[in-house]
Amino acid sequence: MRIKLTVEYDGTDFCGWQCQKNGTSVQSVIEKAIFDVSGESVRVTASGRTDAGVHARGQVAHFDSGFSVPPEKWRYAINGKLPQSILILSSERADGFHARFDAKRKTYVYRMYQAESESPIKRRFAARIDKIDCLAEMKKCAEILLGTHDFKCFQASGSSVKDTVRTIFVSQISVCGNDVEYTVCGNGFLYNMVRMMSGALVAAGKGKLSSESLKEMLVSGSRGAYVKTMPPNGLTLESVEYSEK
Amino acid sequence: MRIKLTVEYDGTDFCGWQCQKNGTSVQSVIEKAIFDVSGESVRVTASGRTDAGVHARGQVAHFDSGFSVPPEKWRYAINGKLPQSILILSSERADGFHARFDAKRKTYVYRMYQAESESPIKRRFAARIDKIDCLAEMKKCAEILLGTHDFKCFQASGSSVKDTVRTIFVSQISVCGNDVEYTVCGNGFLYNMVRMMSGALVAAGKGKLSSESLKEMLVSGSRGAYVKTMPPNGLTLESVEYSEK
Repeated sequence: MRIKLTVEYDGTDFCGWQCQKNGTSVQSVIEKAIFDVSGESVRVTASGRTDAGVHARGQVAHFDSGFSVPPEKWRYAINGKLPQSILILSSERADGFHARFDAKRKTYVYRMYQAESESPIKRRFAARIDKIDCLAEMKKCAEILLGTHDFKCFQASGSSVKDTVRTIFVSQISVCGNDVEYTVCGNGFLYNMVRMMSGALVAAGKGKLSSESLKEMLVSGSRGAYVKTMPPNGLTLESVEYSEK
Repeated sequence: MRIKLTVEYDGTDFCGWQCQKNGTSVQSVIEKAIFDVSGESVRVTASGRTDAGVHARGQVAHFDSGFSVPPEKWRYAINGKLPQSILILSSERADGFHARFDAKRKTYVYRMYQAESESPIKRRFAARIDKIDCLAEMKKCAEILLGTHDFKCFQASGSSVKDTVRTIFVSQISVCGNDVEYTVCGNGFLYNMVRMMSGALVAAGKGKLSSESLKEMLVSGSRGAYVKTMPPNGLTLESVEYSEK
């Protein structure tokens, strides 16, 4: 039986959803918890990997089990074996479902706060940025990213992905006091793409990148040196959408 | 020269502002940082103690120093010696100022979220509560706490404080999605008072405490068994106000 899981995690102390090198991955901790419940060595497949330090409110994953736990009870059984940093929000039977291949849209939020120093209270789930002077240009740049583009300029160097065309459905900056949130929903993202897009928007907010230059970057496929990859702690995978079957 | 500090901290890993027993206190870490800067063994006096696990965005403290650092530079000097969980937001000269005795008003926020299980992302700075069914009664109870009352019923057992009369200037519940915030500003608070007031409001929100019963509690001075002391992680000291001199 295939089980679909929705998972929330604080990624701070993990090496990511999956990792090759040293460190504890979210995936390995969930697989160990399932083993502790059922004695089965299963592979848990997510909608996609999240990097070290990246969080999730709605990561989706699946695994196959022959163990006689009702699908909706898996949630409680696994949670009983997990640390406080990971929580299974739901479990359901989903035969024929594939968390990665069937994903249609993913929504990420990149959280930032304008401050002179790193905030002890905000730092875990948001990245510090300098004061934004050009909010209008920042919002204009977020709008430019909407639609279907070749996002080669927002691909991590050394990446081997050939098809770098993606479609962005939502790309929005919202501001509340000193807090700035970038919400982006797309049909898929290249490695580090959201953190680089956020970096471009921050550059725009500081007057270092114009909306015209951003358009040129999308056409030329190469980004300027002033576009930084934002740190992982600000990023949260909010949700993954699948088509109704 | 007397220096006034405004301090933010993530209280999770501390035994409180000050502690008698084992563990690291916020105060001792700041005193050690000052020693590392100036070689002086100073005593840092806060507006009041915060318990183990309680946070602050605007704790106020003072210390006396003969070291030749300009008052507004102390902030940077101390921050250079502090861990990421504590940040000095400002430092200024304040001769004749006393952080505790001169405090006129303190504002706390108690943060909660309605959920079935503890959230990995919210748990550090908010307490999980069950679904609130009686929001109107909860808000009514928050209003009843406004004004000058004998708050003996919200005093921790074993406390030796004689004068239990306090004045509450702001007492407000705000709800956003599943998040519930209780903001309270008063001229002073008894030990554990905010966490017990929050517990009473949660009881009201669940239909276990009526606004009439709360009025009776204030008059009788004894609280019902259904009023729990809420856990420390939800509590943040937001600000301390002083009269202009």
